[in-house]
Amino acid sequence: MRKAAVLGAGYMGSAITYPLSDSGIEVNLWGTWLDDSIIDSCIRGNHPKLKQKMPENVNFFYSKELKAALKDVDMIFIGVTSNGFVDVFNLVMDNIKDNVPFFKLTKGLVEYEGNVERIAQAAEKIFRKKFGPKEDFLMTVIGGAVNAAELSKKIHTTSIYAPNNEKLFSVPGTFSTDYYSVIVGRDPVGLEISSAFKNVFSIMVGISDGIFAPKYGRGHYVNLNSFIYNQGMIEMSKIALAAGGDENTVFNLAGMGDFYAATLSGRNQRYGEEVGKGGKPHETFSSLFEKGEVSEGYMALKISLEWIKTLDPNLPSQLPLLNAIYSIIFENKDVEKTLMEFLSN
Amino acid sequence: MRKAAVLGAGYMGSAITYPLSDSGIEVNLWGTWLDDSIIDSCIRGNHPKLKQKMPENVNFFYSKELKAALKDVDMIFIGVTSNGFVDVFNLVMDNIKDNVPFFKLTKGLVEYEGNVERIAQAAEKIFRKKFGPKEDFLMTVIGGAVNAAELSKKIHTTSIYAPNNEKLFSVPGTFSTDYYSVIVGRDPVGLEISSAFKNVFSIMVGISDGIFAPKYGRGHYVNLNSFIYNQGMIEMSKIALAAGGDENTVFNLAGMGDFYAATLSGRNQRYGEEVGKGGKPHETFSSLFEKGEVSEGYMALKISLEWIKTLDPNLPSQLPLLNAIYSIIFENKDVEKTLMEFLSN
Repeated sequence: MRKAAVLGAGYMGSAITYPLSDSGIEVNLWGTWLDDSIIDSCIRGNHPKLKQKMPENVNFFYSKELKAALKDVDMIFIGVTSNGFVDVFNLVMDNIKDNVPFFKLTKGLVEYEGNVERIAQAAEKIFRKKFGPKEDFLMTVIGGAVNAAELSKKIHTTSIYAPNNEKLFSVPGTFSTDYYSVIVGRDPVGLEISSAFKNVFSIMVGISDGIFAPKYGRGHYVNLNSFIYNQGMIEMSKIALAAGGDENTVFNLAGMGDFYAATLSGRNQRYGEEVGKGGKPHETFSSLFEKGEVSEGYMALKISLEWIKTLDPNLPSQLPLLNAIYSIIFENKDVEKTLMEFLSN
Repeated sequence: MRKAAVLGAGYMGSAITYPLSDSGIEVNLWGTWLDDSIIDSCIRGNHPKLKQKMPENVNFFYSKELKAALKDVDMIFIGVTSNGFVDVFNLVMDNIKDNVPFFKLTKGLVEYEGNVERIAQAAEKIFRKKFGPKEDFLMTVIGGAVNAAELSKKIHTTSIYAPNNEKLFSVPGTFSTDYYSVIVGRDPVGLEISSAFKNVFSIMVGISDGIFAPKYGRGHYVNLNSFIYNQGMIEMSKIALAAGGDENTVFNLAGMGDFYAATLSGRNQRYGEEVGKGGKPHETFSSLFEKGEVSEGYMALKISLEWIKTLDPNLPSQLPLLNAIYSIIFENKDVEKTLMEFLSN
């Protein structure tokens, strides 16, 4: 029986255990230092966020039990939040002897040694410190339109797995179940960018919901939300191209499909909606964060313009939607006025 | 003062009169033989579908008054349903003396002289019978994410106008208002295909809503709806390319944005939802049609595969979503089974 460690017992880490279990894989689910109460709850009965029992062949590990969780596993899934990624990946290096393939569920950008980077870039640097320059760094980027709560309810979901090495191309298909279709992607960079930025751009759809749903009734302002969605896609494709990704990845399930889903549900839309209703950007983020409802889009947004400048110094000026969101969230600009200016220009 | 005739007093024809009026244009709104009661109602007070007063400088014309409605106009907007287009455009030819620019709001495909065609193609043939081969046929295709009810409430809307002749490029901008942004497009074919097929593919999102909203709660199956949306986009781009349109038109507001909006509201989503809940495809279409709630997607779907074959005989086999919708609506296939097979393949 294959054995996987899944790191992070939040929404996505926990949800992935369902198709893994149903694919006949034994799963060690490890919770971070923020997740100990989740692990408690899972052992006693239900997952507190997914509000249901975890699969049969999942073993639970508290934060202090990382070494045991990683023992004899064939693969490691990482589903912690982006702000915990570097710490957790360093801990993983301290607690494994042999090289194993990594599967990255975490979405966003990270700060590592003073620079903003894609998560897979930072992970490789951390990996090389332990394993040196010659060992294969095997990381599969996971993306696609995957709302974790839906996946845990076994509602039909299609996910994309983009390995960074041809050796891994045959693996993702072994995780498919009747409700979980896995597609192998060939563009981990484009997939990583899409996953990170769909969270960022979904904030503005949420902001629009927060402003206009009370005025017109939810769903009665699709003309302007579709304009935001469309512009988000255009800007996402520009960013992916500049980072060395492929436009065709963005204009497919990795970007277009996942962003579609993210605008309609999820923590970034909800965060934006609170801001649209008048919530202060930082306070709203913090209070949701404390409840374990982390807006990854907020964290990626914070460092995105700085990162994009390193790709192409002229690119930020070609991203009016990204700039509008940034100025609302991090520059205290008037929410409705900024949105209307974006729509009219 | 410029003067426009708007033909068709349904949702879209009536809604466009708001930005036209606010751009300082006098509008003659003509209702077809199906719209006489709408015109009645408008004259007495409110538009019965938009449920509000029409703009000040709109003049109303009953179906028998077409010649008067067309008298001395500088441009003609056509917003009748696709199944009425050929008849109405023939009537227009019978009732105008001079050539004027046409603006096409009607979306779909038409049967004309035994063939299925894009509406603008059929219109040009009808035009040439009256005006001969040398006269400029001036037709601007209108599209983009424009829900008519929202436009009539002056909720911010962006529309695309793609003229078939450079002479017209300066005109659309004159229709812009503070709530109606007009973008000039250079690909009328891609725009026409996008507008027609977003209606078709939205039916399947509606079907999914009809099946799954009662089971999971509305909006709690975004993983699979986003897969349908994404596949619709991929298939729309293939059809547009085969018809001589540009992929970049489809992957922008004309296709991606308009389809996004159409999946979230509109008559095709609603038609699909009724079918997903168990409504018989033809009976459901007919009963909505009688209420003036016309699913343009149903009518385009009916003749779409026949038309696509004329573009490329191998293309229909590369369109699994279109085939799945066709087999549900026109071949009596089991609704949920067909959808699940589509999702799993």
